[in-house]
Amino acid sequence: MKIAYLGPIGSYSYEAAKRFFGKEKENNLTACDTIDDVFEAVEENEAEFGVVPVENSIEGSVSTTLDYLLKSQVYIVKEIILRVEHYLCVREGIEQILTVASHPQAFSQCHDYLRKNFKQAKLIQVSSTSYAAKMCAEGEVDAAICSLFASQQNNLKVLAGPINHDNNYTRFFVITKSPNFEKGNKNKTSIIFSTYDKPGSLYKILAIFNLYDLNLTKIESRPAKTNLGEYVFFVDIEGFVDEEDVSDALKVVQRKSTFFKLLGSYSVILPDE
Amino acid sequence: MKIAYLGPIGSYSYEAAKRFFGKEKENNLTACDTIDDVFEAVEENEAEFGVVPVENSIEGSVSTTLDYLLKSQVYIVKEIILRVEHYLCVREGIEQILTVASHPQAFSQCHDYLRKNFKQAKLIQVSSTSYAAKMCAEGEVDAAICSLFASQQNNLKVLAGPINHDNNYTRFFVITKSPNFEKGNKNKTSIIFSTYDKPGSLYKILAIFNLYDLNLTKIESRPAKTNLGEYVFFVDIEGFVDEEDVSDALKVVQRKSTFFKLLGSYSVILPDE
Repeated sequence: MKIAYLGPIGSYSYEAAKRFFGKEKENNLTACDTIDDVFEAVEENEAEFGVVPVENSIEGSVSTTLDYLLKSQVYIVKEIILRVEHYLCVREGIEQILTVASHPQAFSQCHDYLRKNFKQAKLIQVSSTSYAAKMCAEGEVDAAICSLFASQQNNLKVLAGPINHDNNYTRFFVITKSPNFEKGNKNKTSIIFSTYDKPGSLYKILAIFNLYDLNLTKIESRPAKTNLGEYVFFVDIEGFVDEEDVSDALKVVQRKSTFFKLLGSYSVILPDE
Repeated sequence: MKIAYLGPIGSYSYEAAKRFFGKEKENNLTACDTIDDVFEAVEENEAEFGVVPVENSIEGSVSTTLDYLLKSQVYIVKEIILRVEHYLCVREGIEQILTVASHPQAFSQCHDYLRKNFKQAKLIQVSSTSYAAKMCAEGEVDAAICSLFASQQNNLKVLAGPINHDNNYTRFFVITKSPNFEKGNKNKTSIIFSTYDKPGSLYKILAIFNLYDLNLTKIESRPAKTNLGEYVFFVDIEGFVDEEDVSDALKVVQRKSTFFKLLGSYSVILPDE
Protein backbone atom coordinates (compact mmCIF):
# COMPACT_ATOMS: atom_id res chain seq x y z
CA MET A 1 0.00 0.00 0.00
CA LYS A 2 1.45 3.33 -1.07
CA ILE A 3 0.48 6.67 0.47
CA ALA A 4 1.32 9.71 -1.65
CA TYR A 5 1.76 13.04 0.15
CA LEU A 6 2.90 16.56 -0.68
CA GLY A 7 6.61 16.39 0.10
CA PRO A 8 9.38 16.80 0.84
CA ILE A 9 9.88 14.56 3.85
CA GLY A 10 9.27 16.60 6.99
CA SER A 11 6.53 18.72 5.39
CA TYR A 12 3.29 19.35 7.25
CA SER A 13 1.56 16.93 4.85
CA TYR A 14 4.09 14.32 5.93
CA GLU A 15 3.24 14.97 9.57
CA ALA A 16 -0.47 14.72 8.78
CA ALA A 17 0.06 11.42 6.96
CA LYS A 18 2.04 9.99 9.87
CA ARG A 19 -0.66 11.22 12.25
CA PHE A 20 -3.35 9.20 10.50
CA PHE A 21 -1.50 6.17 9.16
CA GLY A 22 0.78 5.72 12.16
CA LYS A 23 4.47 5.04 12.53
CA GLU A 24 4.17 1.48 11.26
CA LYS A 25 3.13 2.71 7.79
CA GLU A 26 6.03 5.18 7.58
CA ASN A 27 7.74 3.12 4.87
CA ASN A 28 4.63 3.31 2.71
CA LEU A 29 4.80 7.09 2.48
CA THR A 30 5.86 8.47 -0.91
CA ALA A 31 6.72 12.15 -1.31
CA CYS A 32 5.32 14.02 -4.33
CA ASP A 33 6.60 17.35 -5.65
CA THR A 34 3.20 18.94 -6.19
CA ILE A 35 -0.44 18.58 -5.19
CA ASP A 36 -1.14 17.59 -8.81
CA ASP A 37 1.20 14.64 -8.47
CA VAL A 38 -0.56 13.42 -5.32
CA PHE A 39 -3.96 13.45 -7.03
CA GLU A 40 -2.57 11.77 -10.13
CA ALA A 41 -0.83 9.05 -8.13
CA VAL A 42 -4.17 8.19 -6.52
CA GLU A 43 -6.18 8.47 -9.74
CA GLU A 44 -3.74 6.29 -11.67
CA ASN A 45 -3.60 3.66 -8.90
CA GLU A 46 0.05 4.32 -8.18
CA ALA A 47 -0.96 5.07 -4.60
CA GLU A 48 -3.94 3.85 -2.62
CA PHE A 49 -4.18 7.03 -0.55
CA GLY A 50 -3.11 10.63 -0.90
CA VAL A 51 -2.62 13.36 1.71
CA VAL A 52 -3.04 16.97 0.62
CA PRO A 53 -3.43 20.34 2.38
CA VAL A 54 -6.79 21.97 1.79
CA GLU A 55 -6.98 25.09 3.91
CA ASN A 56 -4.59 27.67 5.37
CA SER A 57 -1.63 25.66 4.25
CA ILE A 58 1.82 27.08 4.15
CA GLU A 59 2.98 24.59 1.58
CA GLY A 60 1.12 25.33 -1.55
CA SER A 61 -2.03 26.42 -3.14
CA VAL A 62 -5.25 25.33 -1.59
CA SER A 63 -7.06 26.27 -4.79
CA THR A 64 -5.12 23.50 -6.54
CA THR A 65 -6.63 21.01 -4.11
CA LEU A 66 -10.13 22.40 -4.58
CA ASP A 67 -9.76 22.29 -8.36
CA TYR A 68 -8.69 18.64 -8.26
CA LEU A 69 -11.51 17.71 -5.90
CA LEU A 70 -13.87 19.20 -8.47
CA LYS A 71 -12.44 17.44 -11.52
CA SER A 72 -10.93 14.16 -10.34
CA GLN A 73 -12.53 10.87 -9.32
CA VAL A 74 -11.36 10.65 -5.74
CA TYR A 75 -13.13 10.83 -2.40
CA ILE A 76 -12.27 12.38 0.93
CA VAL A 77 -12.11 9.72 3.66
CA LYS A 78 -10.49 11.65 6.51
CA GLU A 79 -9.74 15.16 7.67
CA ILE A 80 -6.64 15.84 9.74
CA ILE A 81 -6.16 19.17 11.48
CA LEU A 82 -2.63 20.09 12.50
CA ARG A 83 -1.55 23.00 14.63
CA VAL A 84 1.07 24.85 12.62
CA GLU A 85 3.95 26.00 14.80
CA HIS A 86 7.05 27.61 13.44
CA TYR A 87 10.46 27.58 15.12
CA LEU A 88 13.59 29.58 14.51
CA CYS A 89 16.36 27.04 13.94
CA VAL A 90 20.09 27.23 13.27
CA ARG A 91 23.07 24.95 12.58
CA GLU A 92 25.29 24.16 15.56
CA GLY A 93 27.94 26.85 15.92
CA ILE A 94 26.05 29.73 14.30
CA GLU A 95 26.40 32.84 16.46
CA GLN A 96 24.98 35.64 14.37
CA ILE A 97 21.90 35.41 12.18
CA LEU A 98 22.21 37.47 9.02
CA THR A 99 20.09 35.32 6.68
CA VAL A 100 16.87 33.44 7.39
CA ALA A 101 15.15 31.13 4.92
CA SER A 102 11.49 30.12 4.93
CA HIS A 103 8.28 29.95 2.95
CA PRO A 104 6.73 33.41 2.33
CA GLN A 105 3.63 32.45 4.29
CA ALA A 106 5.71 31.30 7.26
CA PHE A 107 7.50 34.67 7.19
CA SER A 108 4.09 36.26 7.19
CA GLN A 109 2.96 34.20 10.17
CA CYS A 110 6.13 35.08 12.13
CA HIS A 111 6.14 38.69 11.03
CA ASP A 112 5.93 40.30 14.51
CA TYR A 113 8.68 38.14 15.98
CA LEU A 114 11.03 38.77 13.06
CA ARG A 115 10.34 42.48 13.08
CA LYS A 116 11.10 42.70 16.79
CA ASN A 117 14.16 40.44 16.88
CA PHE A 118 15.68 40.25 13.44
CA LYS A 119 14.75 43.45 11.69
CA GLN A 120 18.11 43.58 9.90
CA ALA A 121 18.31 39.94 8.81
CA LYS A 122 17.87 39.14 5.13
CA LEU A 123 14.81 36.95 4.52
CA ILE A 124 15.26 34.36 1.77
CA GLN A 125 11.93 33.12 0.42
CA VAL A 126 11.89 29.48 -0.62
CA SER A 127 9.18 27.05 -1.68
CA SER A 128 8.70 25.17 1.60
CA THR A 129 9.72 25.34 5.24
CA SER A 130 11.31 21.88 5.03
CA TYR A 131 13.45 23.04 2.11
CA ALA A 132 14.48 26.05 4.23
CA ALA A 133 15.60 23.66 6.98
CA LYS A 134 17.63 21.70 4.43
CA MET A 135 19.29 24.89 3.14
CA CYS A 136 20.20 25.84 6.70
CA ALA A 137 21.68 22.40 7.37
CA GLU A 138 23.75 22.69 4.19
CA GLY A 139 25.13 26.07 5.20
CA GLU A 140 23.39 28.20 2.60
CA VAL A 141 21.66 30.35 5.21
CA ASP A 142 22.25 31.03 8.91
CA ALA A 143 18.75 30.16 10.11
CA ALA A 144 15.49 28.65 8.97
CA ILE A 145 11.92 29.04 10.12
CA CYS A 146 10.42 25.56 10.02
CA SER A 147 8.52 22.94 11.98
CA LEU A 148 10.02 21.14 14.97
CA PHE A 149 9.92 18.02 12.86
CA ALA A 150 11.93 19.54 10.01
CA SER A 151 14.50 20.85 12.50
CA GLN A 152 14.97 17.33 13.85
CA GLN A 153 15.21 15.83 10.36
CA ASN A 154 18.00 18.25 9.55
CA ASN A 155 19.77 18.24 12.93
CA LEU A 156 19.12 21.91 13.52
CA LYS A 157 19.18 23.60 16.92
CA VAL A 158 15.92 25.26 17.97
CA LEU A 159 16.58 28.84 19.09
CA ALA A 160 13.02 30.00 19.71
CA GLY A 161 9.46 29.01 19.14
CA PRO A 162 6.70 28.72 18.46
CA ILE A 163 7.29 32.18 16.99
CA ASN A 164 4.14 32.46 14.87
CA HIS A 165 1.26 34.75 15.76
CA ASP A 166 -1.79 33.10 17.18
CA ASN A 167 -3.17 29.63 16.92
CA ASN A 168 -2.80 28.56 13.36
CA TYR A 169 -4.19 25.38 11.90
CA THR A 170 -3.90 23.57 8.61
CA ARG A 171 -6.52 21.14 7.33
CA PHE A 172 -5.51 18.09 5.33
CA PHE A 173 -7.62 15.60 3.43
CA VAL A 174 -6.88 11.93 2.98
CA ILE A 175 -8.12 11.00 -0.50
CA THR A 176 -8.70 7.63 -2.13
CA LYS A 177 -10.54 6.18 -5.12
CA SER A 178 -13.25 4.17 -3.40
CA PRO A 179 -15.99 5.82 -1.33
CA ASN A 180 -15.54 3.68 1.80
CA PHE A 181 -16.71 6.28 4.26
CA GLU A 182 -16.09 5.53 7.94
CA LYS A 183 -17.98 7.28 10.69
CA GLY A 184 -16.19 8.60 13.78
CA ASN A 185 -16.96 10.91 16.69
CA LYS A 186 -16.94 14.22 14.85
CA ASN A 187 -18.08 13.87 11.25
CA LYS A 188 -18.33 16.10 8.24
CA THR A 189 -19.69 15.75 4.73
CA SER A 190 -18.26 17.76 1.83
CA ILE A 191 -20.09 18.55 -1.37
CA ILE A 192 -19.72 20.75 -4.42
CA PHE A 193 -22.73 22.23 -6.17
CA SER A 194 -23.39 24.83 -8.84
CA THR A 195 -26.16 27.35 -9.27
CA TYR A 196 -26.71 29.92 -11.96
CA ASP A 197 -25.38 33.39 -11.34
CA LYS A 198 -28.61 35.14 -10.41
CA PRO A 199 -29.75 36.76 -7.17
CA GLY A 200 -31.18 34.31 -4.68
CA SER A 201 -29.97 31.05 -6.23
CA LEU A 202 -27.48 30.30 -3.46
CA TYR A 203 -30.03 31.45 -0.90
CA LYS A 204 -32.50 28.87 -2.21
CA ILE A 205 -29.99 26.04 -1.75
CA LEU A 206 -29.08 27.20 1.75
CA ALA A 207 -32.79 27.12 2.58
CA ILE A 208 -32.58 23.35 2.16
CA PHE A 209 -29.79 23.00 4.73
CA ASN A 210 -31.75 25.27 7.03
CA LEU A 211 -34.87 23.14 6.65
CA TYR A 212 -32.99 20.01 7.73
CA ASP A 213 -31.21 21.81 10.63
CA LEU A 214 -27.78 21.24 9.15
CA ASN A 215 -24.85 23.40 10.19
CA LEU A 216 -22.36 24.47 7.54
CA THR A 217 -18.77 24.62 8.76
CA LYS A 218 -17.44 26.07 5.53
CA ILE A 219 -18.73 27.70 2.40
CA GLU A 220 -16.60 28.96 -0.44
CA SER A 221 -17.53 30.09 -3.92
CA ARG A 222 -15.25 29.67 -6.91
CA PRO A 223 -15.71 30.39 -10.61
CA ALA A 224 -16.80 27.16 -12.34
CA LYS A 225 -14.36 27.62 -15.27
CA THR A 226 -17.01 26.19 -17.58
CA ASN A 227 -19.44 29.00 -18.37
CA LEU A 228 -18.64 32.56 -17.42
CA GLY A 229 -20.83 33.69 -14.55
CA GLU A 230 -21.38 30.16 -13.29
CA TYR A 231 -20.09 29.37 -9.83
CA VAL A 232 -19.34 26.27 -7.85
CA PHE A 233 -19.77 26.21 -4.09
CA PHE A 234 -17.63 24.08 -1.81
CA VAL A 235 -19.65 23.34 1.29
CA ASP A 236 -18.80 21.32 4.42
CA ILE A 237 -21.71 20.14 6.57
CA GLU A 238 -21.62 18.78 10.12
CA GLY A 239 -22.84 15.18 10.08
CA PHE A 240 -22.38 11.87 8.29
CA VAL A 241 -24.11 10.67 5.11
CA ASP A 242 -25.91 7.86 6.97
CA GLU A 243 -27.91 10.41 9.00
CA GLU A 244 -31.41 11.01 7.65
CA ASP A 245 -31.23 14.81 7.73
CA VAL A 246 -27.94 14.77 5.85
CA SER A 247 -28.95 12.25 3.19
CA ASP A 248 -32.39 13.81 2.66
CA ALA A 249 -30.95 17.31 2.39
CA LEU A 250 -28.30 16.19 -0.10
CA LYS A 251 -30.96 14.57 -2.29
CA VAL A 252 -32.88 17.85 -2.49
CA VAL A 253 -29.72 19.91 -3.05
CA GLN A 254 -28.74 17.58 -5.87
CA ARG A 255 -32.16 18.00 -7.50
CA LYS A 256 -32.17 21.80 -7.16
CA SER A 257 -28.62 22.52 -8.33
CA THR A 258 -27.15 22.55 -11.83
CA PHE A 259 -24.19 20.41 -10.75
CA PHE A 260 -23.67 18.24 -7.69
CA LYS A 261 -20.81 16.13 -6.41
CA LEU A 262 -20.39 14.31 -3.12
CA LEU A 263 -16.73 14.69 -2.17
CA GLY A 264 -16.90 12.49 0.89
CA SER A 265 -18.17 11.87 4.37
CA TYR A 266 -15.47 11.50 6.98
CA SER A 267 -14.40 11.89 10.58
CA VAL A 268 -11.98 14.53 11.76
CA ILE A 269 -8.71 14.10 13.66
CA LEU A 270 -8.22 17.16 15.86
CA PRO A 271 -4.75 18.46 16.90
CA ASP A 272 -5.01 17.40 20.52
CA GLU A 273 -6.42 13.91 20.05
CA MET B 1 2.79 59.77 -3.65
CA LYS B 2 4.11 56.29 -2.95
CA ILE B 3 2.39 53.09 -4.13
CA ALA B 4 3.43 49.94 -2.26
CA TYR B 5 3.01 46.61 -4.07
CA LEU B 6 3.95 42.98 -3.54
CA GLY B 7 7.31 42.75 -5.31
CA PRO B 8 9.70 42.03 -6.76
CA ILE B 9 9.60 44.25 -9.82
CA GLY B 10 7.93 42.34 -12.65
CA SER B 11 5.52 40.51 -10.32
CA TYR B 12 1.86 40.28 -11.23
CA SER B 13 1.12 42.84 -8.48
CA TYR B 14 3.53 45.16 -10.26
CA GLU B 15 1.65 44.66 -13.50
CA ALA B 16 -1.65 45.29 -11.73
CA ALA B 17 -0.29 48.50 -10.18
CA LYS B 18 0.96 49.74 -13.56
CA ARG B 19 -2.39 48.86 -15.08
CA PHE B 20 -4.26 51.14 -12.69
CA PHE B 21 -1.81 53.93 -11.96
CA GLY B 22 -0.39 54.16 -15.47
CA LYS B 23 3.11 54.44 -16.84
CA GLU B 24 3.54 58.00 -15.58
CA LYS B 25 3.36 56.84 -11.95
CA GLU B 26 5.94 54.07 -12.50
CA ASN B 27 8.52 55.89 -10.40
CA ASN B 28 6.11 56.02 -7.46
CA LEU B 29 5.93 52.23 -7.22
CA THR B 30 7.71 50.70 -4.22
CA ALA B 31 8.26 46.93 -4.02
CA CYS B 32 7.53 45.17 -0.71
CA ASP B 33 8.74 41.69 0.24
CA THR B 34 5.47 40.48 1.73
CA ILE B 35 1.76 41.25 1.75
CA ASP B 36 2.19 42.25 5.42
CA ASP B 37 4.67 44.94 4.39
CA VAL B 38 2.25 46.39 1.83
CA PHE B 39 -0.54 46.72 4.41
CA GLU B 40 1.83 48.20 7.00
CA ALA B 41 3.22 50.73 4.54
CA VAL B 42 -0.31 51.99 3.90
CA GLU B 43 -1.38 51.87 7.55
CA GLU B 44 1.71 53.76 8.70
CA ASN B 45 1.37 56.38 5.95
CA GLU B 46 4.59 55.34 4.27
CA ALA B 47 2.57 54.76 1.11
CA GLU B 48 -0.68 56.32 0.00
CA PHE B 49 -1.82 53.23 -1.88
CA GLY B 50 -1.10 49.52 -1.77
CA VAL B 51 -1.64 46.79 -4.38
CA VAL B 52 -2.13 43.22 -3.16
CA PRO B 53 -3.35 39.95 -4.68
CA VAL B 54 -6.57 38.69 -3.16
CA GLU B 55 -7.66 35.65 -5.12
CA ASN B 56 -6.05 32.86 -7.11
CA SER B 57 -2.70 34.52 -6.91
CA ILE B 58 0.46 32.73 -7.72
CA GLU B 59 2.54 35.04 -5.61
CA GLY B 60 1.51 34.45 -2.08
CA SER B 61 -1.18 33.67 0.32
CA VAL B 62 -4.57 35.14 -0.28
CA SER B 63 -5.51 34.36 3.31
CA THR B 64 -2.87 36.87 4.42
CA THR B 65 -4.72 39.55 2.44
CA LEU B 66 -8.09 38.54 3.89
CA ASP B 67 -6.68 38.56 7.43
CA TYR B 68 -5.31 42.06 6.96
CA LEU B 69 -8.54 43.33 5.44
CA LEU B 70 -10.26 42.08 8.59
CA LYS B 71 -7.87 43.62 11.10
CA SER B 72 -6.39 46.73 9.50
CA GLN B 73 -7.85 50.19 8.91
CA VAL B 74 -7.67 50.34 5.14
CA TYR B 75 -10.30 50.41 2.42
CA ILE B 76 -10.54 48.82 -1.01
CA VAL B 77 -10.85 51.48 -3.71
CA LYS B 78 -10.29 49.44 -6.87
CA GLU B 79 -10.26 45.88 -8.13
CA ILE B 80 -7.94 44.89 -10.98
CA ILE B 81 -8.31 41.56 -12.72
CA LEU B 82 -5.33 40.28 -14.65
CA ARG B 83 -5.21 37.30 -16.96
CA VAL B 84 -2.35 35.15 -15.71
CA GLU B 85 -0.33 33.73 -18.58
CA HIS B 86 2.83 31.75 -18.10
CA TYR B 87 5.63 31.45 -20.65
CA LEU B 88 8.57 29.10 -20.90
CA CYS B 89 11.65 31.30 -21.14
CA VAL B 90 15.38 30.71 -21.52
CA ARG B 91 18.63 32.65 -21.69
CA GLU B 92 20.05 33.24 -25.17
CA GLY B 93 22.18 30.27 -26.20
CA ILE B 94 20.51 27.59 -24.09
CA GLU B 95 19.91 24.49 -26.22
CA GLN B 96 18.83 21.83 -23.78
CA ILE B 97 16.51 22.35 -20.84
CA LEU B 98 17.44 20.22 -17.85
CA THR B 99 16.29 22.54 -15.07
CA VAL B 100 13.22 24.78 -14.91
CA ALA B 101 12.51 27.23 -12.09
CA SER B 102 9.13 28.65 -11.11
CA HIS B 103 6.61 29.12 -8.32
CA PRO B 104 4.92 25.84 -7.24
CA GLN B 105 1.53 27.17 -8.30
CA ALA B 106 2.83 28.12 -11.75
CA PHE B 107 4.20 24.58 -12.12
CA SER B 108 0.77 23.38 -11.16
CA GLN B 109 -0.91 25.59 -13.74
CA CYS B 110 1.49 24.41 -16.48
CA HIS B 111 1.40 20.79 -15.38
CA ASP B 112 0.08 19.27 -18.63
CA TYR B 113 2.53 21.15 -20.83
CA LEU B 114 5.50 20.22 -18.67
CA ARG B 115 4.43 16.62 -18.44
CA LYS B 116 4.12 16.37 -22.21
CA ASN B 117 7.26 18.25 -23.19
CA PHE B 118 9.69 18.25 -20.28
CA LYS B 119 8.92 15.13 -18.30
CA GLN B 120 12.62 14.60 -17.53
CA ALA B 121 13.49 18.18 -16.57
CA LYS B 122 14.17 18.96 -12.94
CA LEU B 123 11.67 21.47 -11.53
CA ILE B 124 13.12 23.95 -9.05
CA GLN B 125 10.45 25.51 -6.85
CA VAL B 126 11.09 29.13 -5.88
CA SER B 127 9.04 31.81 -4.14
CA SER B 128 7.91 33.81 -7.19
CA THR B 129 7.88 33.58 -10.97
CA SER B 130 9.81 36.83 -11.24
CA TYR B 131 12.52 35.40 -9.01
CA ALA B 132 12.62 32.35 -11.30
CA ALA B 133 13.19 34.64 -14.27
CA LYS B 134 16.04 36.32 -12.41
CA MET B 135 17.62 32.94 -11.58
CA CYS B 136 17.43 31.97 -15.22
CA ALA B 137 19.04 35.23 -16.33
CA GLU B 138 21.85 34.67 -13.84
CA GLY B 139 22.54 31.16 -15.15
CA GLU B 140 21.34 29.20 -12.12
CA VAL B 141 18.72 27.29 -14.15
CA ASP B 142 18.22 26.61 -17.86
CA ALA B 143 14.65 27.88 -18.06
CA ALA B 144 12.00 29.72 -16.09
CA ILE B 145 8.23 29.74 -16.22
CA CYS B 146 7.21 33.36 -15.77
CA SER B 147 5.14 36.21 -17.16
CA LEU B 148 5.97 37.87 -20.47
CA PHE B 149 6.77 40.95 -18.46
CA ALA B 150 9.31 39.17 -16.25
CA SER B 151 10.95 37.64 -19.34
CA GLN B 152 11.41 41.14 -20.81
CA GLN B 153 12.74 42.53 -17.53
CA ASN B 154 15.39 39.79 -17.49
CA ASN B 155 16.15 39.68 -21.23
CA LEU B 156 14.96 36.10 -21.57
CA LYS B 157 13.90 34.47 -24.83
CA VAL B 158 10.32 33.19 -24.92
CA LEU B 159 10.26 29.58 -26.14
CA ALA B 160 6.55 28.83 -25.73
CA GLY B 161 3.41 30.20 -24.23
CA PRO B 162 0.99 30.77 -22.80
CA ILE B 163 1.58 27.24 -21.52
CA ASN B 164 -0.87 27.26 -18.61
CA HIS B 165 -4.12 25.30 -18.64
CA ASP B 166 -7.25 27.29 -19.14
CA ASN B 167 -8.10 30.90 -18.59
CA ASN B 168 -6.65 31.88 -15.30
CA TYR B 169 -7.24 35.17 -13.55
CA THR B 170 -5.86 36.88 -10.50
CA ARG B 171 -7.73 39.57 -8.60
CA PHE B 172 -5.91 42.46 -7.00
CA PHE B 173 -7.14 45.14 -4.64
CA VAL B 174 -5.91 48.70 -4.46
CA ILE B 175 -6.04 49.71 -0.79
CA THR B 176 -5.79 53.09 0.90
CA LYS B 177 -6.58 54.69 4.25
CA SER B 178 -9.40 57.01 3.29
CA PRO B 179 -12.77 55.72 2.07
CA ASN B 180 -12.96 57.84 -1.08
CA PHE B 181 -15.02 55.41 -3.10
CA GLU B 182 -15.36 56.14 -6.82
CA LYS B 183 -18.11 54.66 -8.92
CA GLY B 184 -17.38 53.18 -12.35
CA ASN B 185 -19.16 51.01 -14.92
CA LYS B 186 -19.00 47.69 -13.09
CA ASN B 187 -19.07 48.11 -9.33
CA LYS B 188 -18.73 45.88 -6.32
CA THR B 189 -19.04 46.33 -2.59
CA SER B 190 -17.09 44.14 -0.15
CA ILE B 191 -18.06 43.50 3.44
CA ILE B 192 -17.11 41.23 6.31
CA PHE B 193 -19.67 40.06 8.84
CA SER B 194 -19.87 37.50 11.62
CA THR B 195 -22.67 35.29 12.84
CA TYR B 196 -22.74 32.76 15.62
CA ASP B 197 -22.01 29.17 14.71
CA LYS B 198 -25.53 27.80 14.71
CA PRO B 199 -27.67 26.34 11.93
CA GLY B 200 -29.45 28.98 9.88
CA SER B 201 -27.53 32.06 11.01
CA LEU B 202 -25.81 32.57 7.65
CA TYR B 203 -29.07 31.75 5.91
CA LYS B 204 -30.79 34.57 7.78
CA ILE B 205 -28.22 37.11 6.63
CA LEU B 206 -28.42 35.91 3.03
CA ALA B 207 -32.18 36.40 3.23
CA ILE B 208 -31.48 40.13 3.52
CA PHE B 209 -29.46 40.21 0.29
CA ASN B 210 -32.20 38.19 -1.35
CA LEU B 211 -34.85 40.65 -0.18
CA TYR B 212 -33.02 43.57 -1.78
CA ASP B 213 -32.30 41.64 -5.02
CA LEU B 214 -28.56 41.82 -4.53
CA ASN B 215 -26.28 39.37 -6.30
CA LEU B 216 -23.29 38.01 -4.41
CA THR B 217 -20.21 37.49 -6.56
CA LYS B 218 -18.22 35.84 -3.80
CA ILE B 219 -18.77 34.31 -0.40
CA GLU B 220 -16.09 32.77 1.77
CA SER B 221 -16.16 31.71 5.39
CA ARG B 222 -13.12 31.85 7.65
CA PRO B 223 -12.63 31.12 11.35
CA ALA B 224 -12.88 34.43 13.25
CA LYS B 225 -9.79 33.66 15.41
CA THR B 226 -11.54 35.34 18.34
CA ASN B 227 -13.95 32.83 19.82
CA LEU B 228 -13.84 29.22 18.75
CA GLY B 229 -16.82 28.36 16.60
CA GLU B 230 -17.30 31.94 15.46
CA TYR B 231 -16.95 32.62 11.76
CA VAL B 232 -16.42 35.65 9.59
CA PHE B 233 -17.84 35.81 6.10
CA PHE B 234 -16.19 37.72 3.29
CA VAL B 235 -18.88 38.73 0.83
CA ASP B 236 -18.69 40.68 -2.43
CA ILE B 237 -21.92 42.20 -3.74
CA GLU B 238 -22.66 43.60 -7.18
CA GLY B 239 -23.43 47.30 -6.87
CA PHE B 240 -22.16 50.52 -5.34
CA VAL B 241 -22.82 51.87 -1.83
CA ASP B 242 -24.74 54.86 -3.16
CA GLU B 243 -27.48 52.59 -4.55
CA GLU B 244 -30.54 52.36 -2.29
CA ASP B 245 -30.79 48.58 -2.33
CA VAL B 246 -27.12 48.21 -1.42
CA SER B 247 -27.10 50.80 1.36
CA ASP B 248 -30.40 49.62 2.85
CA ALA B 249 -29.34 45.95 2.77
CA LEU B 250 -26.01 46.76 4.43
CA LYS B 251 -27.78 48.64 7.23
CA VAL B 252 -29.90 45.57 8.00
CA VAL B 253 -26.96 43.17 7.72
CA GLN B 254 -25.01 45.35 10.12
CA ARG B 255 -27.89 45.26 12.62
CA LYS B 256 -28.38 41.49 12.36
CA SER B 257 -24.76 40.37 12.53
CA THR B 258 -22.40 40.15 15.50
CA PHE B 259 -19.64 41.97 13.62
CA PHE B 260 -19.75 44.11 10.49
CA LYS B 261 -17.13 45.92 8.44
CA LEU B 262 -17.42 47.73 5.14
CA LEU B 263 -14.22 46.96 3.23
CA GLY B 264 -14.98 49.20 0.31
CA SER B 265 -17.06 50.02 -2.72
CA TYR B 266 -15.14 50.13 -5.96
CA SER B 267 -15.16 49.67 -9.70
CA VAL B 268 -13.45 46.82 -11.47
CA ILE B 269 -10.80 46.92 -14.20
CA LEU B 270 -11.25 43.85 -16.40
CA PRO B 271 -8.36 42.18 -18.31
CA ASP B 272 -9.45 43.34 -21.75
CA GLU B 273 -10.29 46.96 -20.97
